[in-house]
Amino acid sequence: MKLLTYKYEDTEKIGILDPSETYILPLGQFGIFSRTMNELIDSPDDLKKLEAADLEGAAERVLYSEVVTCAPIPCPKQDIICLGINYMAHAEESARFKKEAFGGERPYAVYFSKRVNEAAGSGWDIPSHSDITKQLDYEAELAVIIGKDTKNVQPEDAGDYIFGYTVLNDISARELQIRHKQWYFGKSLEGSTLMGPWIVTKDELEFPPKRRITSTVNGELRQDSNTELLIFSIQHVISELSMGMTLKAGTIISMGTPAGVGMGMEPPTFLKAGDVVECWIEGIGALTNRIAD
Amino acid sequence: MKLLTYKYEDTEKIGILDPSETYILPLGQFGIFSRTMNELIDSPDDLKKLEAADLEGAAERVLYSEVVTCAPIPCPKQDIICLGINYMAHAEESARFKKEAFGGERPYAVYFSKRVNEAAGSGWDIPSHSDITKQLDYEAELAVIIGKDTKNVQPEDAGDYIFGYTVLNDISARELQIRHKQWYFGKSLEGSTLMGPWIVTKDELEFPPKRRITSTVNGELRQDSNTELLIFSIQHVISELSMGMTLKAGTIISMGTPAGVGMGMEPPTFLKAGDVVECWIEGIGALTNRIAD
Repeated sequence: MKLLTYKYEDTEKIGILDPSETYILPLGQFGIFSRTMNELIDSPDDLKKLEAADLEGAAERVLYSEVVTCAPIPCPKQDIICLGINYMAHAEESARFKKEAFGGERPYAVYFSKRVNEAAGSGWDIPSHSDITKQLDYEAELAVIIGKDTKNVQPEDAGDYIFGYTVLNDISARELQIRHKQWYFGKSLEGSTLMGPWIVTKDELEFPPKRRITSTVNGELRQDSNTELLIFSIQHVISELSMGMTLKAGTIISMGTPAGVGMGMEPPTFLKAGDVVECWIEGIGALTNRIAD
Repeated sequence: MKLLTYKYEDTEKIGILDPSETYILPLGQFGIFSRTMNELIDSPDDLKKLEAADLEGAAERVLYSEVVTCAPIPCPKQDIICLGINYMAHAEESARFKKEAFGGERPYAVYFSKRVNEAAGSGWDIPSHSDITKQLDYEAELAVIIGKDTKNVQPEDAGDYIFGYTVLNDISARELQIRHKQWYFGKSLEGSTLMGPWIVTKDELEFPPKRRITSTVNGELRQDSNTELLIFSIQHVISELSMGMTLKAGTIISMGTPAGVGMGMEPPTFLKAGDVVECWIEGIGALTNRIAD
């Protein structure tokens, strides 16, 4: 299933995309009471109704082209948990850009968080924050949505706790990320969490997902890798984090970005007003955003 | 005013402490509808009612000694924003413990976040997490509670956006903090955010606060400094962060810890089961917690 949050006639709703990706079927018509994706993830009753729903016979349909696509979870309940330096080739390009910030051996996963007041969906503009950064960069990532409270889980059971996947663009202000030592501020600028275009539920992909992941800037291919090349796997990450903290249902874990970001180019090349960034994962979809003027 | 969250007869409530610190006056009796501290902070109407309340004539009183004290904001809306290395003497002891993690020049504030599902109040036990850490450490800190949405604020106006202050013990698992490079995981173990005993509203302290801050372990003085010795001031921090992100009402910013933590001792000495840690700030109060067995 592809589940999405969208605005239609100024109202935010949740729906399911029909297989042709032409229509959205609003979930309310199936007797589902959840009004947000977080409520849906938290409601076993509504999820059962969704599984049993007669999608073919759905009376209420909205053209996908006529809605505003929101981030599938517009207001995450907590900060996004992110992985740093989780593809080998990206580790190398990052160390080349700034050795003291990104170099060195790394036998353990690097976790940081990204504050988000409101995540932006596909089609939304990305604020340039040109008054405080000249080094805005993109990062295409596979994001994992946790489906139920997760505590002390072994790696082999971690898949059971996943609700689905989406594409996340972890927009980063590089000089802020580096100069404040800890990455938090440079990762958390307003409007710098892009997610979408929807959630693909876990049953639609193999586990762990082995999918091509790319990004383009103004149509030029920049990142091109595969999610099977993660250094620390989804199973490892969910298990390790769950040994120390409860990952609540709705938690979003973004698995890190492959090589090909702007700071890795020679010379480093950052995003500028008007640039269009598209992040895509095979079997999920494309997340397209433009840097605002 | 001293505002607190407490449990009485298994119900969580908010109240105001009477000046003798003997009684809690539940806020409901003053026509205040907010049921949580976050709701109160968000409700100008309820705050007006609180200002006008006849505390002397309050009919409903509960003995402070008969309630369970909770963190004043038990479920923060977002991760706690924390300052790293924000007192000079603590910068020196940290670099002595682990130069590559904490050393070097630092012309900019270090921001990181601390995930919290449920913050613990004074009197609560601190989980030892002895299966994943042998280096549990305390950090007494002044925490600032933001009172209204804060965006693009100049340092000289930052004080207007503060609701109040509390004491925060930023429990840290040092080997996790260091080996994962970014500090997030080692700072975010379940139950490692202690706050309290209450919020002192900003009108009760000078601005910025110049208050003695201490911690003791089993009665032995460990940290002893003054909040006027912050390297990056409250005004600077609120202003800088607000240039990049909206700090929503209810946001908690913990201003960093002075010298005297366990990793700074010779030899480094960490918390063990049964230890009692008390963090205290003059004019706010004492936050006392025991490491669980």
